[in-house]
Amino acid sequence: MSNFARREFLTGAAVLAAATTAAFLKSEEAEGGDTSFMNNVPDPSLSGKDLPTFKFALEKSEGKVIGKSFGKEATVEQLPISKGIAGVSMRIEPGAMRELHWHATAAEWAFVLEGRVRTTVIDPHGNSETNDFNAGDVWFFPRGHGHMLECLGNEPCQFILIFDNGYFSEFGTFSISDWIGHAPKSLLAKNFGLPESAFNGFPKEEVYFARGAVPPEKPATPLQGLKLPPQTHKYELLEQAPHAEFKGGREWRVDSTRFPISTTITGVVLDLEPGSLRELHWHPTADEWQYVISGKISVSMFGSHGRYRTEELEKGDVAYIPQGYGHSIENIGSTPCRILIGLNTGVYQAIDLSQWIAGNPVDVLATNFGMPAALFEKFPKKDVFIADQQGR
Amino acid sequence: MSNFARREFLTGAAVLAAATTAAFLKSEEAEGGDTSFMNNVPDPSLSGKDLPTFKFALEKSEGKVIGKSFGKEATVEQLPISKGIAGVSMRIEPGAMRELHWHATAAEWAFVLEGRVRTTVIDPHGNSETNDFNAGDVWFFPRGHGHMLECLGNEPCQFILIFDNGYFSEFGTFSISDWIGHAPKSLLAKNFGLPESAFNGFPKEEVYFARGAVPPEKPATPLQGLKLPPQTHKYELLEQAPHAEFKGGREWRVDSTRFPISTTITGVVLDLEPGSLRELHWHPTADEWQYVISGKISVSMFGSHGRYRTEELEKGDVAYIPQGYGHSIENIGSTPCRILIGLNTGVYQAIDLSQWIAGNPVDVLATNFGMPAALFEKFPKKDVFIADQQGR
Amino acid sequence: MSNFARREFLTGAAVLAAATTAAFLKSEEAEGGDTSFMNNVPDPSLSGKDLPTFKFALEKSEGKVIGKSFGKEATVEQLPISKGIAGVSMRIEPGAMRELHWHATAAEWAFVLEGRVRTTVIDPHGNSETNDFNAGDVWFFPRGHGHMLECLGNEPCQFILIFDNGYFSEFGTFSISDWIGHAPKSLLAKNFGLPESAFNGFPKEEVYFARGAVPPEKPATPLQGLKLPPQTHKYELLEQAPHAEFKGGREWRVDSTRFPISTTITGVVLDLEPGSLRELHWHPTADEWQYVISGKISVSMFGSHGRYRTEELEKGDVAYIPQGYGHSIENIGSTPCRILIGLNTGVYQAIDLSQWIAGNPVDVLATNFGMPAALFEKFPKKDVFIADQQGR
Repeated sequence: MSNFARREFLTGAAVLAAATTAAFLKSEEAEGGDTSFMNNVPDPSLSGKDLPTFKFALEKSEGKVIGKSFGKEATVEQLPISKGIAGVSMRIEPGAMRELHWHATAAEWAFVLEGRVRTTVIDPHGNSETNDFNAGDVWFFPRGHGHMLECLGNEPCQFILIFDNGYFSEFGTFSISDWIGHAPKSLLAKNFGLPESAFNGFPKEEVYFARGAVPPEKPATPLQGLKLPPQTHKYELLEQAPHAEFKGGREWRVDSTRFPISTTITGVVLDLEPGSLRELHWHPTADEWQYVISGKISVSMFGSHGRYRTEELEKGDVAYIPQGYGHSIENIGSTPCRILIGLNTGVYQAIDLSQWIAGNPVDVLATNFGMPAALFEKFPKKDVFIADQQGR
Repeated sequence: MSNFARREFLTGAAVLAAATTAAFLKSEEAEGGDTSFMNNVPDPSLSGKDLPTFKFALEKSEGKVIGKSFGKEATVEQLPISKGIAGVSMRIEPGAMRELHWHATAAEWAFVLEGRVRTTVIDPHGNSETNDFNAGDVWFFPRGHGHMLECLGNEPCQFILIFDNGYFSEFGTFSISDWIGHAPKSLLAKNFGLPESAFNGFPKEEVYFARGAVPPEKPATPLQGLKLPPQTHKYELLEQAPHAEFKGGREWRVDSTRFPISTTITGVVLDLEPGSLRELHWHPTADEWQYVISGKISVSMFGSHGRYRTEELEKGDVAYIPQGYGHSIENIGSTPCRILIGLNTGVYQAIDLSQWIAGNPVDVLATNFGMPAALFEKFPKKDVFIADQQGR
Repeated sequence: MSNFARREFLTGAAVLAAATTAAFLKSEEAEGGDTSFMNNVPDPSLSGKDLPTFKFALEKSEGKVIGKSFGKEATVEQLPISKGIAGVSMRIEPGAMRELHWHATAAEWAFVLEGRVRTTVIDPHGNSETNDFNAGDVWFFPRGHGHMLECLGNEPCQFILIFDNGYFSEFGTFSISDWIGHAPKSLLAKNFGLPESAFNGFPKEEVYFARGAVPPEKPATPLQGLKLPPQTHKYELLEQAPHAEFKGGREWRVDSTRFPISTTITGVVLDLEPGSLRELHWHPTADEWQYVISGKISVSMFGSHGRYRTEELEKGDVAYIPQGYGHSIENIGSTPCRILIGLNTGVYQAIDLSQWIAGNPVDVLATNFGMPAALFEKFPKKDVFIADQQGR
């Protein structure tokens, strides 16, 4: 809803009822029975005659800018269809830090586009890990685990963050300076066994991007000494061989089977040559979030009941495909393209149209389409996955 | 909310704002905190002073008819209480096929009433299975797995489909002809490595029921050859011995402990002699969906706060009991009855009233009901399960 | 939905139906796609500029009183923020019983404050267990399992019940007398194989608190004989050594790792000396519900975006902290205090602020807060957990 629409929405007596949607949820009706029904309620934004847009120009948006650092986000606010996954493009300048914070409502998965990044993260057992990341590396922080991100070296860094909750946003991010800045000094003094004066000069409001010295090349030891978690938060995705390689492109993929801590997000990097196509397919267990790292693509989406929509995306644009919806990605530019894809599942699953067809005998296909059986003998006899410009 | 309050709620301009629950969900309020609360929100249709109807005359409804094939559905549209489970009665004429499709929002469980059915199904590992079913057989297809259903032989077939989502319906069903019919031929040609002309003559809209030759008695090999899944999708339910047999009736039951792939649905076939009773009981972990295969029954439902309701059902009617609600099924006809029951759980659980009482000492029962302890010595000392007309 | 469509949607009589959320849920919009989105929808009551109250004076509320027994509840009705957990304070007089009942929508965890309690509970395998409880003992009954609670001996008993559902309330509680009182005698007679006259004199409405003889000291055998469940429903929490002991206080804690049946609730008893502080911390996987057994405390809550709120609680008051929200508990009275805490998780997890800070090197902290690195060398080098009045 635009701000204007929202204002309309809240005009006059209408406000009363709007307020009571919340009230409704706590009215006597809140006393009723079946606790599971809400899990099945479909998304109204997917229930119209036509499919809504599934594209947002993330890098063209303004975002939050402090100095030369920025964070731009794609949540349900910017892209209403994206209920299951949100994304952020973040750039941090040398000497700057996305301060210590946690997300109450989402796990965080990231892919480094350029530069070098250092992170620290704490877990509920008191273990902490510090990692350094290069372009092509990935991190995962479970929901609620405290962490910071800082630029390493003298060049800025940029990375894409993917969250397993499209409603992730401001009220889902808890920053340490915001907390300490609003707690009474007497409470802090008692908490840390220090004089109140120790907290003189601390920020009074959220810092978000902090700026200081460029971090030491070799990370210093934490105050508590080394106390490492059993599972690492780092995976060097592009250092691996692609798990699938075709004439028309290649794909790297990482889920919890290779990166055990990443139990709620799967990440994919897809390269397509000009004219190549990641074929028509769907994911039975996950929503999909796409970010164009380079190139120009056409994404198709099929939503049942004759609902079919295509969007063209350029570098810096994002797209979203709901769970179970058919889709394809085609390189329509003159140069190779690279797409970053996040899925909200710890175990990747997909069904490709060519393989589905190949899983049936020709008599079934002949009856289904009302065409001669001989035609289907010409169809691919195995999964196509990536088709090049001339076909397989 | 009382009826009076609801009327107030709907007065005047306030309606405008209240109407946009969708808008509400993407307003600023969408940015807030606790992600778990919606799971607990109770179903408003179960929160009134009286219980709503829990019966729908499925076979008397019109449904979708193509030739002599039909599909009639019971979803929240037809039976608002049935949030957790939907059902479909489907008849397919000889030579016809419910075309290749998948359900983005539900798994599918089925019981064959008459005739013979062939299915194919693909899984996300590229495995496909073809199975032939007779009356009394069951299938299960996990959420999102592509499949088709066709009539085998020269007699029509009929079966009952049960989905683990009461909101399952049109926008939850994705048909292959609908997808291919709306995708550009150039995209299809590239996808399959075929000339565009290969797709001349394909249907442009969803076929739903396709018609062609009667399938070969022995299924042909799929295009990709045999590539079988590790778990079968077929279970011959009525070929098993009943798991419970009483003077008044018998029950067959299948959940994932016997049919491992069926992780979200349990199926039951219940036979009752005239006058017999499946006793008062409830399911702590599942909603229940009933379909009367034959006979005439009375179903009671208890919903706390003095809310008690009885419905009479005939052949072809369905009923729905929410999770945790007390209920019973009594044969009130002059012939044996058979009821098909689906529960949205992979592991069956029930608590019978007679066994609950038998699990307590008589002093507890005496105090609870304000009656002499000696009375309760006469109560059953074990689970009744099915009572015949004369009692045990 | 486009604005145009929405306007259409709201035209004329259509408004009436659209306005009710219940109606909305079965409208065409109910046919749409992505089933998972509702799980992410944030709680509107946590999405305002300021945090709502998180305190309710439970023991000062009226509740349900029968004779000298009472039940007082804190649900979303009394404390709107408490979506994830509800609580009840219950007192039962000698010879009285909270009758046989089950909760269709919640599991029940309890802590005995004073007196002695006997319970019976049935499970879906027909096993029943009778247990006697003293002050400091705990029980857990899974969602939907039938049970009763009665006072043992000649002194009244009191206990706190914690439910893993803030919407738990009247329509979530199913009482045996309510069921039997509304079922026809002919049905009951058939169910139990008894004459209809056996049910003459049974209560016609819900008894709730029944009154009878003081129970025998040694529990009698159930009608069905002894048929014990594999896991006990009882845990003697305060008979254990505290799992954490500090100069400023101590904590007992029990989750499913020590009490295997308690898969959805963790319980904690926290003792603080005057002036002591359970330090700033958060729970990444659970909401928290607090009940003050004795003393006077100040609870702080941090909700991001500068939202910080403090509430003072006395004996009998409750508080609620949503998942992921920062909080602390400080004894502000002149006597030791004891707090009962319930979390809606089977495995306890917490991150303490002192340990998070100690998990980082000083250069990170210096940049984050814009303060000299040397300051952070004075911070605690391990988890504080409980700080006493003078600091560690």
